[in-house]
Amino acid sequence: MIDFRSDTFTKPTPAMIDAMMSAQVGDDVFGEDVTVNELQEYAATLFGKEAALYCPSGTMSNQIAIKCHTQPGDEVICEKNAHVYIYEGGGIAFNSSSQARPIEGNNGRITAEQVAEAINPDDVHKARTSLVCLENTSNRGGGSCYDFEEIKKVRKVCTDHNLQLHLDGARLFNALVAKKETPAQYGEVFDSISVCLNKGLGCPIGSILIGSKTFINKARRVRKVLGGGMRQAGYMAATGLYALKNNVSRLELDHTHAKQIANALSSKSFVGNIMPVETNILIFEIKKPFTAKAFTDALKQHQIACIPISETHVRIVTHLDVSEAMVRQTLDVINTITL
Amino acid sequence: MIDFRSDTFTKPTPAMIDAMMSAQVGDDVFGEDVTVNELQEYAATLFGKEAALYCPSGTMSNQIAIKCHTQPGDEVICEKNAHVYIYEGGGIAFNSSSQARPIEGNNGRITAEQVAEAINPDDVHKARTSLVCLENTSNRGGGSCYDFEEIKKVRKVCTDHNLQLHLDGARLFNALVAKKETPAQYGEVFDSISVCLNKGLGCPIGSILIGSKTFINKARRVRKVLGGGMRQAGYMAATGLYALKNNVSRLELDHTHAKQIANALSSKSFVGNIMPVETNILIFEIKKPFTAKAFTDALKQHQIACIPISETHVRIVTHLDVSEAMVRQTLDVINTITL
Amino acid sequence: MIDFRSDTFTKPTPAMIDAMMSAQVGDDVFGEDVTVNELQEYAATLFGKEAALYCPSGTMSNQIAIKCHTQPGDEVICEKNAHVYIYEGGGIAFNSSSQARPIEGNNGRITAEQVAEAINPDDVHKARTSLVCLENTSNRGGGSCYDFEEIKKVRKVCTDHNLQLHLDGARLFNALVAKKETPAQYGEVFDSISVCLNKGLGCPIGSILIGSKTFINKARRVRKVLGGGMRQAGYMAATGLYALKNNVSRLELDHTHAKQIANALSSKSFVGNIMPVETNILIFEIKKPFTAKAFTDALKQHQIACIPISETHVRIVTHLDVSEAMVRQTLDVINTITL
Amino acid sequence: MIDFRSDTFTKPTPAMIDAMMSAQVGDDVFGEDVTVNELQEYAATLFGKEAALYCPSGTMSNQIAIKCHTQPGDEVICEKNAHVYIYEGGGIAFNSSSQARPIEGNNGRITAEQVAEAINPDDVHKARTSLVCLENTSNRGGGSCYDFEEIKKVRKVCTDHNLQLHLDGARLFNALVAKKETPAQYGEVFDSISVCLNKGLGCPIGSILIGSKTFINKARRVRKVLGGGMRQAGYMAATGLYALKNNVSRLELDHTHAKQIANALSSKSFVGNIMPVETNILIFEIKKPFTAKAFTDALKQHQIACIPISETHVRIVTHLDVSEAMVRQTLDVINTITL
Repeated sequence: MIDFRSDTFTKPTPAMIDAMMSAQVGDDVFGEDVTVNELQEYAATLFGKEAALYCPSGTMSNQIAIKCHTQPGDEVICEKNAHVYIYEGGGIAFNSSSQARPIEGNNGRITAEQVAEAINPDDVHKARTSLVCLENTSNRGGGSCYDFEEIKKVRKVCTDHNLQLHLDGARLFNALVAKKETPAQYGEVFDSISVCLNKGLGCPIGSILIGSKTFINKARRVRKVLGGGMRQAGYMAATGLYALKNNVSRLELDHTHAKQIANALSSKSFVGNIMPVETNILIFEIKKPFTAKAFTDALKQHQIACIPISETHVRIVTHLDVSEAMVRQTLDVINTITL
Repeated sequence: MIDFRSDTFTKPTPAMIDAMMSAQVGDDVFGEDVTVNELQEYAATLFGKEAALYCPSGTMSNQIAIKCHTQPGDEVICEKNAHVYIYEGGGIAFNSSSQARPIEGNNGRITAEQVAEAINPDDVHKARTSLVCLENTSNRGGGSCYDFEEIKKVRKVCTDHNLQLHLDGARLFNALVAKKETPAQYGEVFDSISVCLNKGLGCPIGSILIGSKTFINKARRVRKVLGGGMRQAGYMAATGLYALKNNVSRLELDHTHAKQIANALSSKSFVGNIMPVETNILIFEIKKPFTAKAFTDALKQHQIACIPISETHVRIVTHLDVSEAMVRQTLDVINTITL
Repeated sequence: MIDFRSDTFTKPTPAMIDAMMSAQVGDDVFGEDVTVNELQEYAATLFGKEAALYCPSGTMSNQIAIKCHTQPGDEVICEKNAHVYIYEGGGIAFNSSSQARPIEGNNGRITAEQVAEAINPDDVHKARTSLVCLENTSNRGGGSCYDFEEIKKVRKVCTDHNLQLHLDGARLFNALVAKKETPAQYGEVFDSISVCLNKGLGCPIGSILIGSKTFINKARRVRKVLGGGMRQAGYMAATGLYALKNNVSRLELDHTHAKQIANALSSKSFVGNIMPVETNILIFEIKKPFTAKAFTDALKQHQIACIPISETHVRIVTHLDVSEAMVRQTLDVINTITL
Repeated sequence: MIDFRSDTFTKPTPAMIDAMMSAQVGDDVFGEDVTVNELQEYAATLFGKEAALYCPSGTMSNQIAIKCHTQPGDEVICEKNAHVYIYEGGGIAFNSSSQARPIEGNNGRITAEQVAEAINPDDVHKARTSLVCLENTSNRGGGSCYDFEEIKKVRKVCTDHNLQLHLDGARLFNALVAKKETPAQYGEVFDSISVCLNKGLGCPIGSILIGSKTFINKARRVRKVLGGGMRQAGYMAATGLYALKNNVSRLELDHTHAKQIANALSSKSFVGNIMPVETNILIFEIKKPFTAKAFTDALKQHQIACIPISETHVRIVTHLDVSEAMVRQTLDVINTITL
């Protein structure tokens, strides 16, 4: 099976498993897991921030950040298809008793101007706007990347209006590689950043939340109350360290693969609009009378898995476990397939 | 001062004050306030429902209803400018830890089709959709009224998907009068209805929440924990009874006044789009280079007050305390005014 | 019926109704109700504080204060029978997502030493202690009053540990009259104070929350989201002003009445322990084999109402609507009654 | 270092690491991690329940259970030193907006009679009692075990009053071994059970929550919103399976060790009361003028670590990483030590 369903399906390479098995561990609730500590310091330094916190999932990293930045009754500005709003189980409301102010963006990206317009005045009728969340790359935006100049403008709006700025960087390293940017650039403009270790970076589990010391101290308290404090988490943290040191630059290859597949699809008569491919996510339309499901069923006949994300659209995600040979095989299938 | 800012500014008439002063009261927390009980029974019967609960404000009635219909982490479908979403201090999240799913409607009204599309599938990533809130008339929709046939279709979608349906009927009686509908029609299709007594109906304070016995029992518990249980509330409830019995049919006059003013405005060169006037709210555009504030300042010179709700739009609300003479005076001013 | 069930049953006197009827009102949500404003300023000045906020109930005043002083996950120190913990519907958790740390006190009063011992260390396992709530007089403590010197010690502990200190002063004026203390003394040591206008002070509804300007600004926002913002609330506020100016010193009489009744009860063979009577609440034991209910049933035969608060204990509350004649009649009944 | 601070410090044995390394994994968020599935089925079957859910920590298992069993504003009955109340960061309030009703027990154990007395009547003033949490063994009770007959009585009270019954079984297997009881006995009387895999059972991380299918479906949703959904969690789950199959019966040895140490301590003049030693936790008093810290400092000189849990009390916990040789060495140190 060639699995394009998600980069969350990646399994550790033998080298990563070696790193896991040889990890030095301790009770992290007592701060004694040296591998967890090393990962946290490594990530903080990489982003030029003071501190970091290892979490069991990207959802938890995001939810902790939102909780630390808001009060109950606050309003959080985000894109209408942001992961924090539509894929985290209603967590903004559940964990932070805050409400989302979803904005319709351009392939998942919102502008500084849109943010400025969405800020509520100081009025008891209105929720207090306190946080802006950006997502880079944008999952539902088809792996789209922000223009860093626009991010700096959003930062300025936040600073001017005393808002916090959080980055859902689940796939941030895909954006960094695609746009030739650095973690430090992002550390400079965001108050907090969450990065998934278990998507394109290939770890079995884990996410890292990065921010100031004060922020991470608050975050540690929230992680505890959510039940995210783990004991000998070093085995898992070791995979994170390995990934950050070894699996970043190879993301370029995933992006090339996604573009090759998009190219093959573009010549098919049953394929409609293909969202711009900037990283490892490829979302495209299947023209009527054909359906997204008809296409994914057809691929399944050839042992190729991908997901219909609506009646008309399919998502393909390239990653560590999709080799060049698998991509060549996929291109062959696409070239010959009919619906 | 002729005050078109809001129908919340109405003050009790002498007859209503008489009703207030002669009310029989008791400790309502012990269920012993006969006037509160009478109001609750009167309202329940009027709407063909089992029970009702007197609350200090329309916001509390709505917030209690939302709380009773949802679980933390649920999703509430409403129009993007719904009062429950934008004017109740982030209460859906604060009181119910639920998240709004705002939909762009037509002058504040959403369709059954839009509701059906917005329902989440049963998936742990997704908030559980559990409630739909309609607002009739729609405040930000310019006092627009729903077509009752569309409401019945929304009811069907809710029934098919096991959703609750709440009506924010802050100004429901304006809709009933305008569309020649009855409270019982609404009682039949909605699981709960909140009605404000202190807007066009002219009471100093108060709102009534209507539903099944089971629902109102839950609501009474939520009212208590929010601090809405009051003691000798009968003085205020008496004004509500008076209003329901005496101040409904006269709303017609407010609607006529709003249309007369709209008509006068339509001939002014600086007035742009005027939203359809169905009830007592009138929202219209001031064309550039003029501003909404320039217009309201000009009226203020003539002792006429109204609110610029944005840089380009003005809202005028007619009500009990705006007499026919005041409207004539206003028409004269509009006819002669220049910016 | 002579009603000793609670001082919440008091009904306005004709003079108070006159004050209500002649009140100047406006839309308080817009800050335009002059009577509400006057009450708030009067109360703030009386307590030597910057600001005050009128609320529909004592429960709401307390719940708003707790919300303003805490963060979700915090811990609130209070006596184990404190009204905020046992009679507000679980509101500390519902409204503030904070947890109570109940302490067993002496007739409802806790000491500075107990408070100091209950403060949690800074540890992610532990809820953050942020607030201490005292209740004076204590309802379940039988109307007991704090020694003001002890309150000052509690204040010092709070200051030393960076905790806020709130007073549930539902019946504070009873304490002030009994102990010959002043509102200003209390304003000086507490961060916030709630005072009920509708108990011994005789108003139909209402409570006032007092604190700093910053605190009251936050409180106004919380009042809105709970649905406690009312429109022409001046009718009710007028009764509060009347009560604060006219009904305070007469509380002395209620206290005398309570002591007279306690004295009569003390000679009855079926009466066991009588809690010390300091103000207008009298809690006493009915010895086995007799029950509290047997006693209250016996009184009911003589048109006297009071409440069995447990199988063995009865509560009698004296107030404005219990005249000297009624007390004499009650004493006669007690003197002759047998179980 | 001989580490008696907690059984959370245990590190995996080589055999457990082998199990981890050879685990089959998949994306558990999609239900495709076969090892996680196997662990969940194994645990459910062991306890005679329908389903189970793997969680990153015992705190999360408990918090999810409490959330599933309660509504905001509910009351949870537990012992005053219950882990869920004092060591989970205020989570009952934070995650469930419910309030604890702490009861003073006997070494951490509460009786059916105490539970019955603590249930609130159905009254809007009172939080709705909906859940009872027991802890077995009790951490702060010195590893004490419940009498199973008492648990059955608590079950009856819960059934009679329509309450749910949850077991915080962080160290349940210690109780099972000490009392010669079976998991199935517990599965029969409790609605839900959480069991830690990372304490005496020796896993690096993880906890398992057990209950009915309906309950676990709700729990999975709550786990997601808290951020506890993990991807290739099978590596960790494999250690859990290994532990349940291999590390249970050996707990007996830990209990013997704890008793041996207690025995040695009992002859020391500076040791006061020693709580009954039933399992692997030993809590004892250091007599004045000596302090708990003086004792732990003295042990530290001999490379032995344990924790002063108050000024006067010390806790020692025996576990997998404390060998018989280490215990003998400890006994030697205790026999010769002076303060």
